[in-house]
Amino acid sequence: MEITKESSRPLDLGIITPEALLSHWQGHRKLTRQVIQAFPEEQLHTYSIGGMRTFFELAKEIMGLSGTGIRGIVTGNWDFLPEEDYRPGKSTIKTKEELLRVWDKVTNDINTFWWQIPAERFKETIKSFGQWEGETTNIILYWIDNEIHHRGQGYVYLRSLGIEPPPFWNRY
Amino acid sequence: MEITKESSRPLDLGIITPEALLSHWQGHRKLTRQVIQAFPEEQLHTYSIGGMRTFFELAKEIMGLSGTGIRGIVTGNWDFLPEEDYRPGKSTIKTKEELLRVWDKVTNDINTFWWQIPAERFKETIKSFGQWEGETTNIILYWIDNEIHHRGQGYVYLRSLGIEPPPFWNRY
Repeated sequence: MEITKESSRPLDLGIITPEALLSHWQGHRKLTRQVIQAFPEEQLHTYSIGGMRTFFELAKEIMGLSGTGIRGIVTGNWDFLPEEDYRPGKSTIKTKEELLRVWDKVTNDINTFWWQIPAERFKETIKSFGQWEGETTNIILYWIDNEIHHRGQGYVYLRSLGIEPPPFWNRY
Repeated sequence: MEITKESSRPLDLGIITPEALLSHWQGHRKLTRQVIQAFPEEQLHTYSIGGMRTFFELAKEIMGLSGTGIRGIVTGNWDFLPEEDYRPGKSTIKTKEELLRVWDKVTNDINTFWWQIPAERFKETIKSFGQWEGETTNIILYWIDNEIHHRGQGYVYLRSLGIEPPPFWNRY
């Protein structure tokens, strides 16, 4: 959207700090972890609606983008670690337990790498995973949005299986 | 999440401006509008999975929170306009066409009211709709997250109806 209207606010006013964005992201990741846990092992791997991917596949994508993504922002290296590679035929993760283990590793990686992002990097244009170009902050927002989007789909899977999902606001 | 680690970045570094957040929000609203449009009138009102609400109900909630919410942030008045009131038995909107008409009005309202939010308001703690307390910026992020979450559920409804949803990245 093009913003043209004049405002009396300073044009460089920042209303979200890197620390607030990290907290926002990790809050969402905490909720997604609970959604993974809510799936029975079998349905995590097999259940699907309308020809969509299973929640196991969706969760691996979310995890892979997050883990390899944060490392890419800091180092410029966008190669997947084997356990974070969610592409068809590439994933080495087979069970919910393994998925949660790598999920927690990624949680720590994000917390560690976050502090190594130089202040100016957030406004820089980068090419994430060698293909999606955008401002770093917008790239991170895109990953968070993608997580919320697919997690919302997991809620429908759970409801349709008769399982109560964790409350949406339970991220803090 | 508690942030304790020290960083060399300035602690008050702002990486998202109000204008960027507005653009982010309206981009998501543009995509949600396409999802509403993708539903056939009948299924918009009747289709549901796992006992969840129809997408008509979900879209009215998204619209009502956004329209009345932006007005509340600026004026402190959190009363619903009749056409934005999504609570059971309160909504005056009956058709997809009416929904899209009010949706577009809310789009304009957000663009107008946005410029009237004083700079300091974003960091202030407010009580949205008289009940949910939080920093203004976090309240707005919550509305956007809620929209992405429910829209993701609409994607499952559409897929399960054999309808191709609009691409998730089509927000710009």
